[in-house]
Amino acid sequence: MPDAIITLTTDFGEESPYVAAMKGVILGINPQARIVDLSHQIPPQDVLHAAFFLAEAVPFFPPDVIHIVVVDPGVGTERHLLYVEVGSHRLLGPDNGIWTLLAGEGVVRRVIQLTERRYWRPTVSATFHGRDVLAPVAAHLSLGLQPELLGSPAAQWVSLNPPAPVRESNHVTGQVVFVDRFGNLISNIPASALPPGGPLQVTVAETAVGRWVRAYGEAQPGELIALVSSSNLVEIAMVQGNAARHLGVGRGAPIRVVLA
Amino acid sequence: MPDAIITLTTDFGEESPYVAAMKGVILGINPQARIVDLSHQIPPQDVLHAAFFLAEAVPFFPPDVIHIVVVDPGVGTERHLLYVEVGSHRLLGPDNGIWTLLAGEGVVRRVIQLTERRYWRPTVSATFHGRDVLAPVAAHLSLGLQPELLGSPAAQWVSLNPPAPVRESNHVTGQVVFVDRFGNLISNIPASALPPGGPLQVTVAETAVGRWVRAYGEAQPGELIALVSSSNLVEIAMVQGNAARHLGVGRGAPIRVVLA
Amino acid sequence: MPDAIITLTTDFGEESPYVAAMKGVILGINPQARIVDLSHQIPPQDVLHAAFFLAEAVPFFPPDVIHIVVVDPGVGTERHLLYVEVGSHRLLGPDNGIWTLLAGEGVVRRVIQLTERRYWRPTVSATFHGRDVLAPVAAHLSLGLQPELLGSPAAQWVSLNPPAPVRESNHVTGQVVFVDRFGNLISNIPASALPPGGPLQVTVAETAVGRWVRAYGEAQPGELIALVSSSNLVEIAMVQGNAARHLGVGRGAPIRVVLA
Repeated sequence: MPDAIITLTTDFGEESPYVAAMKGVILGINPQARIVDLSHQIPPQDVLHAAFFLAEAVPFFPPDVIHIVVVDPGVGTERHLLYVEVGSHRLLGPDNGIWTLLAGEGVVRRVIQLTERRYWRPTVSATFHGRDVLAPVAAHLSLGLQPELLGSPAAQWVSLNPPAPVRESNHVTGQVVFVDRFGNLISNIPASALPPGGPLQVTVAETAVGRWVRAYGEAQPGELIALVSSSNLVEIAMVQGNAARHLGVGRGAPIRVVLA
Repeated sequence: MPDAIITLTTDFGEESPYVAAMKGVILGINPQARIVDLSHQIPPQDVLHAAFFLAEAVPFFPPDVIHIVVVDPGVGTERHLLYVEVGSHRLLGPDNGIWTLLAGEGVVRRVIQLTERRYWRPTVSATFHGRDVLAPVAAHLSLGLQPELLGSPAAQWVSLNPPAPVRESNHVTGQVVFVDRFGNLISNIPASALPPGGPLQVTVAETAVGRWVRAYGEAQPGELIALVSSSNLVEIAMVQGNAARHLGVGRGAPIRVVLA
Repeated sequence: MPDAIITLTTDFGEESPYVAAMKGVILGINPQARIVDLSHQIPPQDVLHAAFFLAEAVPFFPPDVIHIVVVDPGVGTERHLLYVEVGSHRLLGPDNGIWTLLAGEGVVRRVIQLTERRYWRPTVSATFHGRDVLAPVAAHLSLGLQPELLGSPAAQWVSLNPPAPVRESNHVTGQVVFVDRFGNLISNIPASALPPGGPLQVTVAETAVGRWVRAYGEAQPGELIALVSSSNLVEIAMVQGNAARHLGVGRGAPIRVVLA
């Protein structure tokens, strides 16, 4: 697999040289590797944002792609670095739960603690394991290295336990788990948890949302609406506007859907 | 063409997982596709910005590249999705005129409405046609699919009609159509419309521009200048500064060039 | 080398069409070229930032990669454009010293002034040499063009002379040369210049830094620490915070390390 695909998801931004250094290390080991940027704009050290991002993006990739994830507030502590197989997906990242929302959608097939230094850079800094461990390990994997050579199977790992929606007879409550670039508020309430029938009344924080639609285009510009997002979650949006800014709310804001 | 090139131009930003999901869908259908990012920083839902961007960038690409464009305030309405051939360039995007400034530079060879769902993702969300329609269609095209299989020829489409410059005997008036990262103000006045001879006096909004130069380097840092841009349009710039910020003007600001 | 790697480092941002136009020009000459983005978020016209960026990133790349760098406040003046070989690395950029911090780490093998217009675009604008000169030259090099055909050897070039740290018997003084996305303050003091023994006391601007650690994880969130960076330079950081913002300091802030 000399032309294997390696993706990068980091909180490094582009103004700093960290992403570029990682790309150099990968191409130094496998010049044929095809590097695909997923994002370098994960908010700094925001593990939950990254976990949601991965859960929304990785499932669309084909098998055998290697996903490197570096959002790592614990770099240089005793936290482990992991190779993980979730369903057909392969990830490399710190053991901070970053891949465990994704795992909700698939079977965890294998988790390995990275310990075999022969696949790392000869000198490993205390602050940049993305460059010194994850990038070279990904490059070796892209050349066909068997994952079991990377270290020992892990018996346990950090899991994120995001708040679950609460469903009662005629309503369901949850919260905002992600705010996208358009200011759309994505909740943790799956469409499948909505009370059957309708109409539905949605409240975010203290604000009643105008109405429930199927697509942005059914409402007028400036109107506050609720709909099912492209990932099948309840979403609050302002048509051709920015709901998050308009409402002054962000991640964690309570959302309530009631059968009217 | 298994290793065909697919470019992406979106207003998704990188903090959201939408670009990554599109890349996954493309590579899931054609793992050999070579994805090239043009921009994911088009201002949200700014069709005119995207249209100018494409007109300045796409002409430099070789034939057969497939350009996906997702700046789509009308997603989920009745607006169509199009496959377009302009000169030797191939684009996929919503029918909102986004490619029509580019078309000013070439013959529109073919416009097809995307209707054949067999080339889409099995489930199509109401809010993310980039992932569910455009990405898979681009991937199938990159594998050699004939465009006529995507749908039916379109007889009409939305056209952008940006303001045209007005030329009179000794002067020409226009407006700012694009502000770049450096705060340079790019106008809609082509160099070919300038009054012959000189010297030329330029006014932007109410401010007289110091002088006309051939290149930034002919003036001093901080000086406000007018020149012909790299795309042969009249441009107002501040040397090693930011003209847009200094003047407090943006897209739409009037520009006047007079033969002194 | 039809599938040679060409990297791009610019201050163009992504909202402007300049990066996309360069990619189009490269692929128009060598459709097999593999373009790798290093950064388009270098602060506008900040040559020193770019020079530090390159010094931290380029050494990790394998030989034969062609690095295009466009941070060019002097575009359109008499400044030259250069092809440079530093150690095994090949760069193309303006003659503004941008590659000379990198050169501190390797032998300058060859410097050529670009003069042979046959490898440029037929029309060269006065304001966009990245698109009209550097991109086509890189594409021709990626096809195997011999560098000596690009122009004549340069006898001299612009060098950046960043401030050097000053070492005295029991202390060393320097300054911040780079602020990364996390607000970490990277200094010009190499670990090798630190006074032997310890403990060390660090002061940045007028503020005493709490303590010296080996990794972020040894301190508490919010604590101000000093450590050796991933590039072996003294770094001031705030654990899970932003030292630059907290201290209100940036590039040029004085740093002093004293043997306590």
